[in-house]
Amino acid sequence: MERKRLRDLGITVGRMPTGAYNAITDVKGVRVGHCTLIYDEPRVARTGVTIIMPREEAIWDNQAFAGFHVLNGNGDFTGTHWLEESGLLTSPIGITNTHQVGIVRDTLVAYEFSHRKDEYFALPMVAETYDGWLNDINAFHLKAEHVYEAIENASGGVIPEGSVGGGTGMICHDFKGGIGTASRLVATDSGTFTVGALVQTNYGDRDLFRVDGVPVGREIGYARVPDPWAEPPPGGSIIVILATDAPLLPTQCKRLAQRATIGLARVGCVGHNGSGDLFLAFATGNDIRAGQKIPYELKMLPHVQMNAMFEAAAEAVEESVLNALTAAETMIGYKERMVHALPLDELQAVMRKYRSNI
Amino acid sequence: MERKRLRDLGITVGRMPTGAYNAITDVKGVRVGHCTLIYDEPRVARTGVTIIMPREEAIWDNQAFAGFHVLNGNGDFTGTHWLEESGLLTSPIGITNTHQVGIVRDTLVAYEFSHRKDEYFALPMVAETYDGWLNDINAFHLKAEHVYEAIENASGGVIPEGSVGGGTGMICHDFKGGIGTASRLVATDSGTFTVGALVQTNYGDRDLFRVDGVPVGREIGYARVPDPWAEPPPGGSIIVILATDAPLLPTQCKRLAQRATIGLARVGCVGHNGSGDLFLAFATGNDIRAGQKIPYELKMLPHVQMNAMFEAAAEAVEESVLNALTAAETMIGYKERMVHALPLDELQAVMRKYRSNI
Amino acid sequence: MERKRLRDLGITVGRMPTGAYNAITDVKGVRVGHCTLIYDEPRVARTGVTIIMPREEAIWDNQAFAGFHVLNGNGDFTGTHWLEESGLLTSPIGITNTHQVGIVRDTLVAYEFSHRKDEYFALPMVAETYDGWLNDINAFHLKAEHVYEAIENASGGVIPEGSVGGGTGMICHDFKGGIGTASRLVATDSGTFTVGALVQTNYGDRDLFRVDGVPVGREIGYARVPDPWAEPPPGGSIIVILATDAPLLPTQCKRLAQRATIGLARVGCVGHNGSGDLFLAFATGNDIRAGQKIPYELKMLPHVQMNAMFEAAAEAVEESVLNALTAAETMIGYKERMVHALPLDELQAVMRKYRSNI
Amino acid sequence: MERKRLRDLGITVGRMPTGAYNAITDVKGVRVGHCTLIYDEPRVARTGVTIIMPREEAIWDNQAFAGFHVLNGNGDFTGTHWLEESGLLTSPIGITNTHQVGIVRDTLVAYEFSHRKDEYFALPMVAETYDGWLNDINAFHLKAEHVYEAIENASGGVIPEGSVGGGTGMICHDFKGGIGTASRLVATDSGTFTVGALVQTNYGDRDLFRVDGVPVGREIGYARVPDPWAEPPPGGSIIVILATDAPLLPTQCKRLAQRATIGLARVGCVGHNGSGDLFLAFATGNDIRAGQKIPYELKMLPHVQMNAMFEAAAEAVEESVLNALTAAETMIGYKERMVHALPLDELQAVMRKYRSNI
Repeated sequence: MERKRLRDLGITVGRMPTGAYNAITDVKGVRVGHCTLIYDEPRVARTGVTIIMPREEAIWDNQAFAGFHVLNGNGDFTGTHWLEESGLLTSPIGITNTHQVGIVRDTLVAYEFSHRKDEYFALPMVAETYDGWLNDINAFHLKAEHVYEAIENASGGVIPEGSVGGGTGMICHDFKGGIGTASRLVATDSGTFTVGALVQTNYGDRDLFRVDGVPVGREIGYARVPDPWAEPPPGGSIIVILATDAPLLPTQCKRLAQRATIGLARVGCVGHNGSGDLFLAFATGNDIRAGQKIPYELKMLPHVQMNAMFEAAAEAVEESVLNALTAAETMIGYKERMVHALPLDELQAVMRKYRSNI
Repeated sequence: MERKRLRDLGITVGRMPTGAYNAITDVKGVRVGHCTLIYDEPRVARTGVTIIMPREEAIWDNQAFAGFHVLNGNGDFTGTHWLEESGLLTSPIGITNTHQVGIVRDTLVAYEFSHRKDEYFALPMVAETYDGWLNDINAFHLKAEHVYEAIENASGGVIPEGSVGGGTGMICHDFKGGIGTASRLVATDSGTFTVGALVQTNYGDRDLFRVDGVPVGREIGYARVPDPWAEPPPGGSIIVILATDAPLLPTQCKRLAQRATIGLARVGCVGHNGSGDLFLAFATGNDIRAGQKIPYELKMLPHVQMNAMFEAAAEAVEESVLNALTAAETMIGYKERMVHALPLDELQAVMRKYRSNI
Repeated sequence: MERKRLRDLGITVGRMPTGAYNAITDVKGVRVGHCTLIYDEPRVARTGVTIIMPREEAIWDNQAFAGFHVLNGNGDFTGTHWLEESGLLTSPIGITNTHQVGIVRDTLVAYEFSHRKDEYFALPMVAETYDGWLNDINAFHLKAEHVYEAIENASGGVIPEGSVGGGTGMICHDFKGGIGTASRLVATDSGTFTVGALVQTNYGDRDLFRVDGVPVGREIGYARVPDPWAEPPPGGSIIVILATDAPLLPTQCKRLAQRATIGLARVGCVGHNGSGDLFLAFATGNDIRAGQKIPYELKMLPHVQMNAMFEAAAEAVEESVLNALTAAETMIGYKERMVHALPLDELQAVMRKYRSNI
Repeated sequence: MERKRLRDLGITVGRMPTGAYNAITDVKGVRVGHCTLIYDEPRVARTGVTIIMPREEAIWDNQAFAGFHVLNGNGDFTGTHWLEESGLLTSPIGITNTHQVGIVRDTLVAYEFSHRKDEYFALPMVAETYDGWLNDINAFHLKAEHVYEAIENASGGVIPEGSVGGGTGMICHDFKGGIGTASRLVATDSGTFTVGALVQTNYGDRDLFRVDGVPVGREIGYARVPDPWAEPPPGGSIIVILATDAPLLPTQCKRLAQRATIGLARVGCVGHNGSGDLFLAFATGNDIRAGQKIPYELKMLPHVQMNAMFEAAAEAVEESVLNALTAAETMIGYKERMVHALPLDELQAVMRKYRSNI
């Protein structure tokens, strides 16, 4: 059966409307690019890198407020100390495998200074999840050129999902995972805003996996769709990037970031010990131009209007994870290991069984 | 229909076994006492205070490791600065209404120094949620004697739930809320431990309310069971206390505390702006005797064994909220406002409808 | 010798100019009031309460951005969870003794709701340090009327310092401590702003006490000015309140708050284990009107201009501690204990000795 | 004049005794190695990398408790999310220049997996400060081989200080900075422990520079020793690594880490906006063996005994910065820029002037 997005399977989660693409790219200016490495020789590669360009302008020139939250910190995300101190996102965001955060990070430095000629420094933001089950991770496949390729691929509109970019070799709820995205439109007294999410999913037990409250993972079980693991996994993880065009302050971005936990909990995440569950939220509703000498003039959404933003973030994250799962295809990788895709027909069958009489 | 606990309605959530009482008191030494104030003259009282005694010994003599997490900070919890600095719980825990945290706090100081005669200080831990819809909160009903009464009432075993103690005037998912509790037994390579939760529930939209994934709140709606609010509520909140007999370090208690978010998200919490969602976890598995001059000898659960602890915390919190809702009865309070109980027959009917063919 | 402010002794610290009053009240709208309780019968009182009104308008109507930092958390400060979540100061600030935080907190609730008639809640901010060496603290001397008295006493201009208000029974670097204040003017590309500090000092060893780098405490020693303690003190503490009229965001207020550590370290603070070293910074440069339904229009100081603000905060805190010490007089209190004032003539003599040839 | 350590100039700071080497290597098992790159062709290199091996055993096998503090977050330090979550140090620590954190980080991964053969992951800890004034930083001089060289150079005993390793191109208080180290012996009721510090100094104004309270920077001024900067620097920074053999829990390591601020403030640091002031403390007093299935048996220093540890940390950091300054020699680098060393004769002259009559 062809891979589809969740909604194309007739399944919806949440109660808020989506943006035009139901993707993080519904937030104006946000672009996403992947570079995907899949080959078997000389060593098995099932990995890649995903780059998020937060604005149409260079983010180091027109910075964005941002916030960060950690559900479980068994992972890395460079650049967060300055983000937490200043409330500013000043770098593109990279997501890749655990052992190659460094090459992506330093290449983003080089990329930035191929565009700016002043003597300054960069503290790029790069996150990771571990793909060592399907990818021969200590072959260190990624090179600088792959980071540049992901940057060049960055575009708005429809984003490839599933086993692409940083998500290529990932596993989620014991199914094939990867990259997913979704968005919500948020009507407030201050106007309508968009909240978009992009996730790199690599966490979770099958038994806890739910779709709109239905225990899909338990129903599918391991009899028909085998467990990918021959031994306990060393660790999963989920990276969440939230974007919005609302005029949020850093404090509010941080609040938004924590709501990723809500969306993940609905799908069945508990933030396991081996998981790096790191969430970044940025808001493009204010322009923070680097080097400005006079006070910035800003807008701030009243806190009470964050309620709808919070729900939108939870819903967008929830659906992003599900889109990653419905998009990703069965993959055979390192040491001939096979990780099965979430079977879409069985997903639909379970949903019908639990909701047939509603 | 008589009020019951969730499991007595034939409904279970989660996959782990409960302790003997399915209560926070399944953790040896933990005792809970309530003082409940319900009267109409001279001013309407629907309030109270709940006290948790963390150990059989005085907690200021034999302290316990503890950790704290904030999902949404629109609430207060005194004493957390020392708890975060030291990793130690050194005080009984009080939970009451928003405007009377102070009287409970200072009375806990007086109580402690009625037992110890040295020149020292206390930094008691008192949390709150807002009961001003049903309780004439600015009448400041609670007096020191009520705190002492709650302390004297403290006992192990079965704990009164629903509209009692600090939970007397609370509202949850637009139904009558209050105090709830539950527990889980956790089998690990290091032995079997208990995780217990106690919650004071006062948050949430009905529309988001779910039981084991079933959208009970949406199904019941507002037609048969009216919305309690004539105007938007100023704020809800949920206080979560987690206890365990496992030998957790402070760092691990903090990790456990954040898993309350997982349990709450399953029930439909998103951590709204007006909500004080404050979570405390303590562990009695090590004895930290005040005044010891030589190094403490401690045990620490290996981090990887926290996975089952995390799930237990999520499940215990999830079920505690539901027990608060199934225990609390319809209440009429301040200005003749009525808040309806969750109708247990409708709850069961909805659960059957969604699970009839399973 | 008459008690004086540091500068009136011919001693200056730092390199930035002071405001007109060299006090926190140099920040327009900030007012401070004390209520001081000194009596011996029926039980010895050496305590009080200090109230800071952050704006001329009610702070719950026109809120201020704020941030918080903990150097050492062996103390309490209510209301910080909402301040950290929202970045807003919504309450007057009280400072009192450790065992009576509650009465001050609840009275600030009552005070607020004597002015507003809606159904809402308050989460007042009340901090403490421990005066149990000079004050019979478990007599719980403070009553609601004393809090109201401090509020009524609140005024701008010159602020009483030393053994007044919450600082009445405090001890600092083994001399008599109490309340101190100071301010700095900060010239930036965005205009000139004021940073003011108010401290309640109750921490520190004499041996570490320095004035402008000169080891005054070591020089004075314990021979001529006896150690006040017959036994090791249970704990000191220092509360720092920083105010500014600059348009700082919450993130920036939090940064400012941490610079209190710099000023304290210059005087000889190390943040001892028994100390509650809790720092709050608020900024009145933006008006955050409660209940506004449209986005707030704000200004934000560029981060790079925080450098001068940071130095101003450090200097103002440094001088505030010294002003508390030069203002406070020798006190005899509970159990006839005597705590000596910092001898001003010896202070001047030591400064001359170390700087005579400069 | 030959470069010397501070104490060899007859100057001491603090009141506690040093360890045998007055270095971080006084903590048993701690080893430090540098790789220094100084050449002019084809592009100017004044950079390097410093590696700290925390134990004699591999740190991923026998992990150490650790904690982290940020004074000002304008810098990066990878691996801190897991350190904060778990309280564990599981990696060697690298310190290098801002733009090459990545190559050091990924090389530490490769190094670890050249020793272990299981399928697992590493989250190495690598910090940075910015050397772009003296080093042509965007030439990206460092390669994997240099990281290996630093690892191979790691040894106990005397550590090269000044313009070596990661500190090669650094500037501190407008003098030539770099690597410095110091230690203190701490007598407690639980026995005597060592606290060692290592710093990479790259922050600060000359005007604020003090030695034991004496305003050395102001006295030396810019007339005889020119300001290195032709334009405002983009940012300084200071990385502090604290090590101890005391049995500290993670919570206590975090407390210790914050005391670096105290030591830095004594020297004249205020934590400027452009500075990445990131502090890590680890404790080898407990053995945390990876993969253990039964509870760890630990010791914990009573909190009250942290007081001497705090002072030791402050003193060791203070003296480390001064050792970096007295060790580093005048350097000419990128674009022929010259950064002068702190003149030792003038330092001594100023100290004599201020202390001549004492």
